[in-house]
Amino acid sequence: MLQGYQSWIYENQPTIIGTAAVVGPFEGQGPLGDDFDIIHGDLMLGQDSWEKAEKTLLEESNKLAIENAGLTKEQINFYIGGDLMNQIISSSFAGRTLAVPYIGIFGACSSSMKSLALASLLIDSGSAKYALASACSHNASVEKQFRYPTEYGSQKPPTAQFTVTGSGSAVLANEGQGPKVISATIGRVIDMGLKDPYNMGAAMAPAAVDTIQAHFRDLQIDPGYYDLIVTGDLAKVGYKLASELFNKHNVPIKETQYYDCGMMIYDYEKQNVQSGASGCGCSAVVTYGHLLKRLQKGEFNRILVVATGALLSPISYQQGESIPCIAHAVAIKRGEE
Amino acid sequence: MLQGYQSWIYENQPTIIGTAAVVGPFEGQGPLGDDFDIIHGDLMLGQDSWEKAEKTLLEESNKLAIENAGLTKEQINFYIGGDLMNQIISSSFAGRTLAVPYIGIFGACSSSMKSLALASLLIDSGSAKYALASACSHNASVEKQFRYPTEYGSQKPPTAQFTVTGSGSAVLANEGQGPKVISATIGRVIDMGLKDPYNMGAAMAPAAVDTIQAHFRDLQIDPGYYDLIVTGDLAKVGYKLASELFNKHNVPIKETQYYDCGMMIYDYEKQNVQSGASGCGCSAVVTYGHLLKRLQKGEFNRILVVATGALLSPISYQQGESIPCIAHAVAIKRGEE
Repeated sequence: MLQGYQSWIYENQPTIIGTAAVVGPFEGQGPLGDDFDIIHGDLMLGQDSWEKAEKTLLEESNKLAIENAGLTKEQINFYIGGDLMNQIISSSFAGRTLAVPYIGIFGACSSSMKSLALASLLIDSGSAKYALASACSHNASVEKQFRYPTEYGSQKPPTAQFTVTGSGSAVLANEGQGPKVISATIGRVIDMGLKDPYNMGAAMAPAAVDTIQAHFRDLQIDPGYYDLIVTGDLAKVGYKLASELFNKHNVPIKETQYYDCGMMIYDYEKQNVQSGASGCGCSAVVTYGHLLKRLQKGEFNRILVVATGALLSPISYQQGESIPCIAHAVAIKRGEE
Repeated sequence: MLQGYQSWIYENQPTIIGTAAVVGPFEGQGPLGDDFDIIHGDLMLGQDSWEKAEKTLLEESNKLAIENAGLTKEQINFYIGGDLMNQIISSSFAGRTLAVPYIGIFGACSSSMKSLALASLLIDSGSAKYALASACSHNASVEKQFRYPTEYGSQKPPTAQFTVTGSGSAVLANEGQGPKVISATIGRVIDMGLKDPYNMGAAMAPAAVDTIQAHFRDLQIDPGYYDLIVTGDLAKVGYKLASELFNKHNVPIKETQYYDCGMMIYDYEKQNVQSGASGCGCSAVVTYGHLLKRLQKGEFNRILVVATGALLSPISYQQGESIPCIAHAVAIKRGEE
């Protein structure tokens, strides 16, 4: 149900009855390694292209999330997913594999929470019995498409981020055990005129803050309602800017209460990831692999996950356009066990 | 509300309170020219790139649809749109211009009915007061991205289709005057192994038939329920195949009852378009510019629009993959004036 201008309150509080997080070797070596369902030792996943490796990651997380939900794929009414590839081929080909009704979305790295928000809406409104939401990215396929093939070994500035090789999936239902999705806020496109594709965190931070402020306004709550507010992939540079914007706009978010998935998945000391992590898979695997476990353990009662996306393309950048950004927020509470 | 396995019945029957169809010069010269709101004489629309021209088409149809609905953009809760460009930049940049909450989708040429189905769901479930749905394509930007720049003048086989330069938008509400959206069926990805990017009609026809059969099954109706069933952009080759598949599967659709938007927008005698038209804009401008006018005039009572999409990318094609296809169907009835 519409709440305020751009938010939904899910009156029936859809349940996340199954999740899966599948990652590459580098993510497995990071501090969250123990929380992921599958860690691949081979970045190619036995495939003959980076794109097929990415699709395979996604197929695995979809399959496992459905299994973990105790379902078969034939029971899934709708699969909602997105990725960063041109024409979102990872999701569409994974949709072919599943052979269930498919709603492909594109929101760049905001796809994780966008797919979760839409899947929750389908469940809440009685438009689906079971819905699958997912998002994925692969370091080598994404770098090749947006910047340079990783095989070139090109240097990057300290503001750059490292694209996560990972795929996260969640199955939603109107009953069952697991975390409950309670509300969502759909973001507006925010573009502050930044043009540097090696500084996505700075470009996306204002979009994250805009959506978070809209969420509090629409739901008439304050930041204290959540034990944790976590952005998707702002990384160090964007996190600092977002924190400054919260201060500037008098949004009382405490530093201890605000995390960023892009700063959680790698070890800054041991892994050379410049500003931090990025990619559709970043917020997806951190949320589904790590945060929901901490929620269900009782470490948090309610969290707000705000996935951030940069909606540029190589063509728009080459034609001198700035980087339009967006963020979508989903609020999740601990479910009774 | 979920009906059957993959369909929605809209219990509140959302109203299409405003539409707009904006096209290029070639579409203006075709048999439906009189039905379009704006016909551009210049394929560049005064922009300095084909991509910016496509974005401008979309911005115009969005603006006009909102005006025709008697609204201002600030009243639109959610904008749902998609196009064929990498990272759907046309829709995302048009979303930046509108500055309203934005849900970007990718379904290739199925985007027109996919966005309409989702916008209708938002209205029907009380998740939006006003929602905007759109889809667009531009002949030169799409040909450049998927095949060759049109400036090369490369030859095409008779199975090829001509991408429509056009953008169609619709505003949905839970009250007001206009056609009513009554149900929708979300398609599965269907891939029969075809690999020829110059024969999209043949690749997409089985997806259209699958969705149409699912629609009848889920809603427990037969083809006679509709005065018109129209596919999005199968064109001559795909239309013939779909007709054969209807026969083969004993779906009693009469030839006089079944149209294809890809065979309606151009004049085969005077315009050299091989098999016919294609592109996200094809079904969008034919539906919003032409078919809804005929519906409201009383020529039809109920129509089923089945937009078809080919979910390939140039990379998936180059890596030897076949073409996954999808179709989404939306049923619309005449509203009381």
